[in-house]
Amino acid sequence: MNKIIRKNDLLAMEKNYRINLINCLSGYKPLNLVGTQDTKQQTNLAIFNSVFHLGADPALMGCIIRPNSVERHTYENILELKQFTFNHVHQDIFEMAHQTSARYPKEISEFQACSFTEEYIDNFQAPFVKEAHIKIGLDFVRAQDIPENNTILLIGAVQMIIMPEDVFQDDGFLDLEKAATVAGAGLDGYYAPTIVTRLSYAKPDRPLTRF
Amino acid sequence: MNKIIRKNDLLAMEKNYRINLINCLSGYKPLNLVGTQDTKQQTNLAIFNSVFHLGADPALMGCIIRPNSVERHTYENILELKQFTFNHVHQDIFEMAHQTSARYPKEISEFQACSFTEEYIDNFQAPFVKEAHIKIGLDFVRAQDIPENNTILLIGAVQMIIMPEDVFQDDGFLDLEKAATVAGAGLDGYYAPTIVTRLSYAKPDRPLTRF
Repeated sequence: MNKIIRKNDLLAMEKNYRINLINCLSGYKPLNLVGTQDTKQQTNLAIFNSVFHLGADPALMGCIIRPNSVERHTYENILELKQFTFNHVHQDIFEMAHQTSARYPKEISEFQACSFTEEYIDNFQAPFVKEAHIKIGLDFVRAQDIPENNTILLIGAVQMIIMPEDVFQDDGFLDLEKAATVAGAGLDGYYAPTIVTRLSYAKPDRPLTRF
Repeated sequence: MNKIIRKNDLLAMEKNYRINLINCLSGYKPLNLVGTQDTKQQTNLAIFNSVFHLGADPALMGCIIRPNSVERHTYENILELKQFTFNHVHQDIFEMAHQTSARYPKEISEFQACSFTEEYIDNFQAPFVKEAHIKIGLDFVRAQDIPENNTILLIGAVQMIIMPEDVFQDDGFLDLEKAATVAGAGLDGYYAPTIVTRLSYAKPDRPLTRF
């Protein structure tokens, strides 16, 4: 039996019920820890479920920042040092990663508070998460205000990618299952995906093949 | 053993290898079929892996559109009728959904070409996908150019949500596993997630609980 929720039903909903519902609408979400520091070496680590691919050439990624939330420290640091890291949340660290969403004061680093280890690679200034398997270093490109709800689209350029050798496939595809990367749903659901298949490039006149 | 890919390695990569790699960096992606039509009732259906939650109050969602690709028809239709639908890709329809990414001419609707059924609910003008379980109707809010790579951030306001009764949880959370929603990786990987746990709201001085 289908349920239909219309605009008026949404407006009448209890606030937390609506937050849970609307956060689930997009489907499964990527989960990344965003590592930053300010010019005084005060580090910050925050879990984001809004990271997305923006383009491969140039290699750009984006995420949505809510500057009225705990994400404010992340944003301030990115504007200061112009670098940040994305670190995939995986099955052994997802509870520590979730804990980074607690409202710690700025002088407490979530690296220490949530038992993560800062890792510095080459001369990249933002901290990576040593415990993560797949790690990406990005340069700040631009922040675009989204006035409809006072959020910010953050755009970053990929500078560095670190991951276990055996996660790489021959054609550049990454085996996220081998990396134990988890997916999210809503604000608090954690999922372990298993592969169904990959599919061949789609053409109008050719059947798909699984591989 | 870890592999480090630096900026120069990225620039030297074979094009399709880099596309596969960069598309995997964000982690697991949501997979939605976007349903539209133009003012002459010519419908279009396209799979998107870039849909994200923008905010719960007002209820806003976003996605990235590549107007130089097959996504152009979707974008033209949205500008014409100002409405569109998101329909979760699930385990029984993911191959048909992948096939919508083939380069069909505009006069051929992917609904017919890929064996989907148009569904019209209330007086909403954009077609829903009858075979989908979780369906969202959105009004066009705004399109924001992203000049860095000629993509477009599309913003929509949630007008209507349709889904099976038993997918709803008591607190507004949706059981995406019951809905058989799939997750994506890269451009062509399809995954079936299973829940690990939900976690309590994080506070600095309180341990997390699973539920």
